[in-house]
Amino acid sequence: MLSLDFYNPTRIILGKGRIAELDTHISQQARVLVLYGGGSVERNGTLDEVRQALGQRHVQYFSGIEPNPTFETLMQAVELIRRDQLDFLLAVGGGSVIDGSKFVAAAVNFAGDPWEILLNGGTNVTSALPLASVLTLPATGSEMNNGAVITRAASKTKLPMHSDYVFPQFSILDPSKTFSLPARQVANGVVDAFVHVIEQYLTLPSNSPLQDRFAEGLLQTLIEIGEQAVQESDNEEVRANLMWVASLALNGLIGAGVPQDWSTHLLGHELTALYGLDHAQTLAVVLPSMLHERRGAKREKLLQYAARVWQLEAGSEDERIDAAIERTRAFFEAVGVPTRLSAYQLDAACIDPTISQLEQNGMVALGEQGAITPAICRKVLHAAL
Amino acid sequence: MLSLDFYNPTRIILGKGRIAELDTHISQQARVLVLYGGGSVERNGTLDEVRQALGQRHVQYFSGIEPNPTFETLMQAVELIRRDQLDFLLAVGGGSVIDGSKFVAAAVNFAGDPWEILLNGGTNVTSALPLASVLTLPATGSEMNNGAVITRAASKTKLPMHSDYVFPQFSILDPSKTFSLPARQVANGVVDAFVHVIEQYLTLPSNSPLQDRFAEGLLQTLIEIGEQAVQESDNEEVRANLMWVASLALNGLIGAGVPQDWSTHLLGHELTALYGLDHAQTLAVVLPSMLHERRGAKREKLLQYAARVWQLEAGSEDERIDAAIERTRAFFEAVGVPTRLSAYQLDAACIDPTISQLEQNGMVALGEQGAITPAICRKVLHAAL
Repeated sequence: MLSLDFYNPTRIILGKGRIAELDTHISQQARVLVLYGGGSVERNGTLDEVRQALGQRHVQYFSGIEPNPTFETLMQAVELIRRDQLDFLLAVGGGSVIDGSKFVAAAVNFAGDPWEILLNGGTNVTSALPLASVLTLPATGSEMNNGAVITRAASKTKLPMHSDYVFPQFSILDPSKTFSLPARQVANGVVDAFVHVIEQYLTLPSNSPLQDRFAEGLLQTLIEIGEQAVQESDNEEVRANLMWVASLALNGLIGAGVPQDWSTHLLGHELTALYGLDHAQTLAVVLPSMLHERRGAKREKLLQYAARVWQLEAGSEDERIDAAIERTRAFFEAVGVPTRLSAYQLDAACIDPTISQLEQNGMVALGEQGAITPAICRKVLHAAL
Repeated sequence: MLSLDFYNPTRIILGKGRIAELDTHISQQARVLVLYGGGSVERNGTLDEVRQALGQRHVQYFSGIEPNPTFETLMQAVELIRRDQLDFLLAVGGGSVIDGSKFVAAAVNFAGDPWEILLNGGTNVTSALPLASVLTLPATGSEMNNGAVITRAASKTKLPMHSDYVFPQFSILDPSKTFSLPARQVANGVVDAFVHVIEQYLTLPSNSPLQDRFAEGLLQTLIEIGEQAVQESDNEEVRANLMWVASLALNGLIGAGVPQDWSTHLLGHELTALYGLDHAQTLAVVLPSMLHERRGAKREKLLQYAARVWQLEAGSEDERIDAAIERTRAFFEAVGVPTRLSAYQLDAACIDPTISQLEQNGMVALGEQGAITPAICRKVLHAAL
């Protein structure tokens, strides 16, 4: 590692009962829009707690942000904010709600069609409304980063954006707010965080020993607490640790100064857009086959992963790599996320449309070396049937 | 871990040649005071590079900040800033210069005697001038945290302060600017960073698996690169990694939500104040004996440290703890920092004055449990002769 950039101004406030601290961190004069998804934050009391903490401030609500937030829905929030001159966004939910709110924050004052923000990956954003979050689902890390992924429902196009203007000012992580989550969502969160780390770690060696150690520490912790986090729905301490791990898995820290390979995410995005798989389900399907396919290019780091994360020291190099990939697959299955397309009622017929969509979105040279072509992605999907 | 707070808005810009980016990050209208220590940044060209990057801005210079920065010297900078209405501070140097500049930033607009800032540990700071740094010595982590330690020369009192107002806005870490450092200073930096991690890690177990893994990753990286960093004065990549490790060793991350024990630092501070030992030399002297003395209270974490950081799995628990402490001592000696008071021409006569000074400064209940009394510190110093 010869150079890196790191910047992350988001304040993290983690602990049970800390939603009350909204009162400290948002101006009394703010005109707040609370954005959320469906009924779960209404049913489990989170929204009431938020309402109470905001006290006498002017507050409006916008619900209906989807699991894969759509441009179409979010533009309704943009219109509402413009009409009622709201000036502070509070996202209450998981990564989709926070991602959606980031796009809204950037779109409100954007000159021109806000879809241009996504076509430019956020590089053309020059301001945003202030934004904070109350996290209810540890998974994406959106509560502590500057990124978002938005889907245009009409064209099934899913595009990422990044901008330092959309870092949440602060995020409140109350582990008890995760107690009412379905096990499937917690399991998805574990897998999502795990694959976030892998995509920043299992690449080319770059003499970045600390980034490697931190990545390995995140993976080891997820392996230690993953199953317990899914099974013990009211274990406050395990859920607190999971929230912290998921935030640090994608907050810029382990990715600073190192090569990255987001091919598993990008190929997975198309499966979500076309067939509605949960985001983490697509990762669990794609990653093991992608690692197997890329074992040549990733050989050195796969051996390090096998040794340090899975303590695999015996056997030939190829045997250790095989074993590490199989342990990874078994871990996803153990937390409850199937790793084969067939488990989601998909067969070989899904491959052509997925690869076409990938090509149509310009995703033709993925990975840390730009070497993962649609032809390779096709092989990966075949291996994942 | 049930709760934590984390906030760190400092932007890190690491890499050779990046001092030129000062031009991007400081307003053209800023009236800049560049603060530095002695002649080394003049001789090695760092100051010239800073001057060139600042271009046509109004720039003044303040030199003479000591290795343990004194209140008396820093108040001269405060007077200069007030007189000439300067509004941006740029610290160029190591931890002492950055620490000193933080105090200056807080003192300029402080109502009342600025010594009150230190008597209150910084909790009474309500504003500060904007501040940035160009780091030339990886060690203290001051470039990426909100803390400073200042000495009152008249009374030999060394006091810490913390305030979110004094986080550097950004810090530039150019590894090539460390090439001209004496080996002793690099070795001190390795030991300082190592002990920063230990004081946040070797405490009571607190079910904080990720903080533990990150701490262990920092220690393992320091062990891997420490000797090379000292010996290969122009190894840009190793120095870059050392800079990143030292910044993350004390930026709030591994200390969030966990017990901390700063007794080695606090006892060491008195040895610096009374006998002029380098800060890191005091840590190398105190830590092994302190760990030996506190092996009961720290038993569980010492065993974890032995296993995970030093791969010590054989022998009885006590043998593993002994071995881990001896490995720690051997590591400090190997990078070139002696671990016995006798190596610094001090004998038992230093103990009474050091303990008296400790008591006078109110340091009578140190450690994560407040259980480290002056009597225990006396035993530690005896064991360190």
